[in-house]
Amino acid sequence: MPDGFGLSNLPYGAIRRDRASPPRLCVRLHEEAIEVAAIAGDLDVDRALVDAPNLDRLLSAPPATWAVLREALRARLADEVPAHARIPLAGAIPCLPFSVADYVDFYSSIEHATNLGRMFRPDAEPLPPNWRHVPIGYHGRSGTVVVSGTPIRRPSGQLPRPDGPVFAPTERLDLELELGFVTGGPPASLGEPLPIDEAAERIFGFVLVNDWSARDIQRWEYVPLGPFLGKSFATSISAWVVPREALEPYRLAGPEQQPPPLPYLRRREPWSLDIALEIELNGATISRTSAAGLYWSVVQQLTHAASNGALVRPGDLYASGTISGPVSGSEGSLIELTHNGDRPLTIAGEERTFLLDGDRVVLRGTAGDVALGEVAGRVVAA
Amino acid sequence: MPDGFGLSNLPYGAIRRDRASPPRLCVRLHEEAIEVAAIAGDLDVDRALVDAPNLDRLLSAPPATWAVLREALRARLADEVPAHARIPLAGAIPCLPFSVADYVDFYSSIEHATNLGRMFRPDAEPLPPNWRHVPIGYHGRSGTVVVSGTPIRRPSGQLPRPDGPVFAPTERLDLELELGFVTGGPPASLGEPLPIDEAAERIFGFVLVNDWSARDIQRWEYVPLGPFLGKSFATSISAWVVPREALEPYRLAGPEQQPPPLPYLRRREPWSLDIALEIELNGATISRTSAAGLYWSVVQQLTHAASNGALVRPGDLYASGTISGPVSGSEGSLIELTHNGDRPLTIAGEERTFLLDGDRVVLRGTAGDVALGEVAGRVVAA
Repeated sequence: MPDGFGLSNLPYGAIRRDRASPPRLCVRLHEEAIEVAAIAGDLDVDRALVDAPNLDRLLSAPPATWAVLREALRARLADEVPAHARIPLAGAIPCLPFSVADYVDFYSSIEHATNLGRMFRPDAEPLPPNWRHVPIGYHGRSGTVVVSGTPIRRPSGQLPRPDGPVFAPTERLDLELELGFVTGGPPASLGEPLPIDEAAERIFGFVLVNDWSARDIQRWEYVPLGPFLGKSFATSISAWVVPREALEPYRLAGPEQQPPPLPYLRRREPWSLDIALEIELNGATISRTSAAGLYWSVVQQLTHAASNGALVRPGDLYASGTISGPVSGSEGSLIELTHNGDRPLTIAGEERTFLLDGDRVVLRGTAGDVALGEVAGRVVAA
Repeated sequence: MPDGFGLSNLPYGAIRRDRASPPRLCVRLHEEAIEVAAIAGDLDVDRALVDAPNLDRLLSAPPATWAVLREALRARLADEVPAHARIPLAGAIPCLPFSVADYVDFYSSIEHATNLGRMFRPDAEPLPPNWRHVPIGYHGRSGTVVVSGTPIRRPSGQLPRPDGPVFAPTERLDLELELGFVTGGPPASLGEPLPIDEAAERIFGFVLVNDWSARDIQRWEYVPLGPFLGKSFATSISAWVVPREALEPYRLAGPEQQPPPLPYLRRREPWSLDIALEIELNGATISRTSAAGLYWSVVQQLTHAASNGALVRPGDLYASGTISGPVSGSEGSLIELTHNGDRPLTIAGEERTFLLDGDRVVLRGTAGDVALGEVAGRVVAA
């Protein structure tokens, strides 16, 4: 049974061997992290790019360099690796794999946007009129993106009450299952859009994202300028960045888009990704879905974000928005899975709606023999 | 006539002596930039903090260190400075004074929020129901914050039309007059809110901000997740960061807040700032206003942004949102000054509404004998 971390994957991470050691750029091979600098002498790449604590330097290199390094690693790691380069994952400590520059969160799942529209704006059409034209997105807080395993403190904020808001710990803490990607390559000039045919090569790799959300804070604050403190307290990403090349075999055409997008967003190549996803809450699987159905592809997301000339920087993180499928049990958030808390889930004999202190959430993703690993987090009290 | 750049100001910037020189951390004294590292031997501070291209290292130091350095500079600069430390501003090139971590834009002016509400949501109450409870804000794009003088390319985007959107250069390019501040100090722990009594000391200093806006792109995209590409193409800040201490003499109580804010936002100390502001378009002054009337003070803005436990990092930039006054001619944007383009301004005999290619915008601010300088930018064609 393949574990999803063989030579066809080789994701990158920033790993500390133990609490006394600094983070080092590694690739994952099965249950070991391989320190890239420790085998750099055998690779035909600039050592300075990989003798590093994390991916930052490599993200600033040209995409052609990423491909050369990946091929060199695949060749080298087919052979035995010296013990000093190998770090058993049991006991190792993952760090944030790259410094997050800007963080953009999209709203790319038509099923999720429809579900949320019905709940948040029950008197209006569920999809806003711009939805099928614009890959809607907003900027999140890059400073609170954390690596899988980081405890998530329950945030406090203004909660709406009939006689005015109170400031208290959120009572509607939710998870959001998302697919993210990180960009890189030499900096472009401010004001230069990114043609859709050049967008894919700016994507270095993919992560899973849990965009934790406080629904009560969000609902009260979000009109008219969008989500702010209901989201900015924490966003978790998986520890391993799966290179774009590892997921290329799993590209699909994706759903039909009606009306057809404006020309700058027209897909030349298929960039929907056939990634199976699941949500686990306290050990029970509560949702199974797929990234294949996302209405707006990752390439459309990135092209749109850069269409006004905004720079794409190394380390920019883009997330899909919650991924929900069309059937019950395939929703990517608790607010959807429980119909805004009205229809609790039963987990280990208990009725559950939103997250309680002590809850542990794990998101997982797999495309064929390539695992995206997991993004895990436990809720701690306010 | 004081120029606003005497010893009571001493703002910090990142200045290149000429095109062949790297940026260096400087303080401004009248029409010269003084390279701080060049006089560091005379200052009782850690040289490593100031032997730097910009403010980044100093922003990571404790606020007490900022105060020590400022006092040492004031004492040293009362005497003659050797020629090699002095850079005449004529011919020098300003750079971004710090690396922007996260960028948050508020909506703190009740006059601006009311004016915009009337135009964008004519069938509803102009102020949303949360406005007097929540200092509304959203995250902007930190990667496109640029220094005063950077040309602003007219962005393209989806413009709404009766028979569907088109992708074209914005036809409603606007400016926004704002007051910004940058935070610093040792990093807090994720999940720890910032008590309002400790917020002021995390503010290192102030800048002027022009939050360029494409009103047509913004209007079509902003429901339900807020402004995105209508803002993210560029945000200009002034080249000189005025230290908090320089503006302390100009603190005021600010407007009465009704209903009283929730306790976490209650002002212990006055933190409205008596800063006179003006907007110049192609050499003509088109608006005069003041930061003193902002409904939500800078300390309330910062306290709110951190109230969910989101980390305040060195280099985070917070802007007030457009500052508009209560009378005609004191509005902080063209959409307000021209009543959504319906009542053109007359400038040099020409009727003008939104920005044209070639237009030059300069924002200026002054508090007593302390100048915030200017943030300037010229619009270049798409």
